[in-house]
Amino acid sequence: MSTHALTLDAAAQDLLFREARTANAFTDEPVTDAQLRAVYDLVKYGPTAFNQSPLRVVLVRTPEARQRLVAHMDEGNRAKTAAAPLVAILAADNEFHAELPSLLPHFPQAADLFFAERPVREQSALLNAALQAAYFIVGVRAAGLAAGPMTGLDFAGVQKEFLDEDHTPLMVVNIGRPGENAWYPRSPRLDYDQVVTTV
Amino acid sequence: MSTHALTLDAAAQDLLFREARTANAFTDEPVTDAQLRAVYDLVKYGPTAFNQSPLRVVLVRTPEARQRLVAHMDEGNRAKTAAAPLVAILAADNEFHAELPSLLPHFPQAADLFFAERPVREQSALLNAALQAAYFIVGVRAAGLAAGPMTGLDFAGVQKEFLDEDHTPLMVVNIGRPGENAWYPRSPRLDYDQVVTTV
Repeated sequence: MSTHALTLDAAAQDLLFREARTANAFTDEPVTDAQLRAVYDLVKYGPTAFNQSPLRVVLVRTPEARQRLVAHMDEGNRAKTAAAPLVAILAADNEFHAELPSLLPHFPQAADLFFAERPVREQSALLNAALQAAYFIVGVRAAGLAAGPMTGLDFAGVQKEFLDEDHTPLMVVNIGRPGENAWYPRSPRLDYDQVVTTV
Repeated sequence: MSTHALTLDAAAQDLLFREARTANAFTDEPVTDAQLRAVYDLVKYGPTAFNQSPLRVVLVRTPEARQRLVAHMDEGNRAKTAAAPLVAILAADNEFHAELPSLLPHFPQAADLFFAERPVREQSALLNAALQAAYFIVGVRAAGLAAGPMTGLDFAGVQKEFLDEDHTPLMVVNIGRPGENAWYPRSPRLDYDQVVTTV
């Protein structure tokens, strides 16, 4: 353990990374909008390029909507997506530049200078919404909840059913208190020297 | 403030999100390999699809390497990249599937079943390395350091100079203790209701 080398206290390290796990089963305890607002009001501060903040979130709450979503999940993800207290679709807004003048008030030309072209916006929205998706997962854990992010799904189907051509789905996240047998044994991670090189 | 709705203590919220800022100036205090190891040993636990863990990090330490990197940064990012105590190139390993049998020991067929095709791997590596890049930024902050992530650079040039065709650069991150006038005023964030919809 390298706990002593970090400023973040050990309890927070455990809550966010060391003991937090991708949950595959949840209790029945609801996840409230107030909890989601608290998560968002924390992780909205995570950095993105030009403060573009392209992440958009669809909370799938009604049984009818949940059923429509489950139909687009891969077989192995259906039961848990049907049963989770809350399910969120995380998507990138490819038209994020419309908000950029208010998000970057000191540099109002940025939208025109850097993001006039749709393919450039799509690429930037994908990277930066993915950063925000990770902040979101960390934020769910900060709320004492477990996240179950999934990419095993029909992305085109989810986009057609819940979004539009300007919004690209990145993942679906189950959210709740972990239930019985919520996770598999922790899989190994790469060693530092497999990941980090120095020049 | 929604602090009370979160399990994460207020000091940790501040350290990681509320008071943490993208730094543009740093003190001379070095960032050690021990600090980087502590960051990695925390954030390596952040979830990725199939535990694929595609993030790779190049620490640019020698003056000669730093000079080569600075030449590929956009004009506005050069001075701070030249001066930061440590600079890291974050990249996605498009051949991550080679490690998958050891990363996912309970499902050794995953590499062949899901990642036999390079375009599929590239797409998955980009998304999942971006998640890990966000965990990395959070981890730098957890070490009491400031991160300065940048995408204003010549990506093809950085790839050619420091990586290879199997590794796609995502961003460059300056790392250190914030110095004088390290940041701009905090830019506004989108409101919850601009980001989150419910169905």
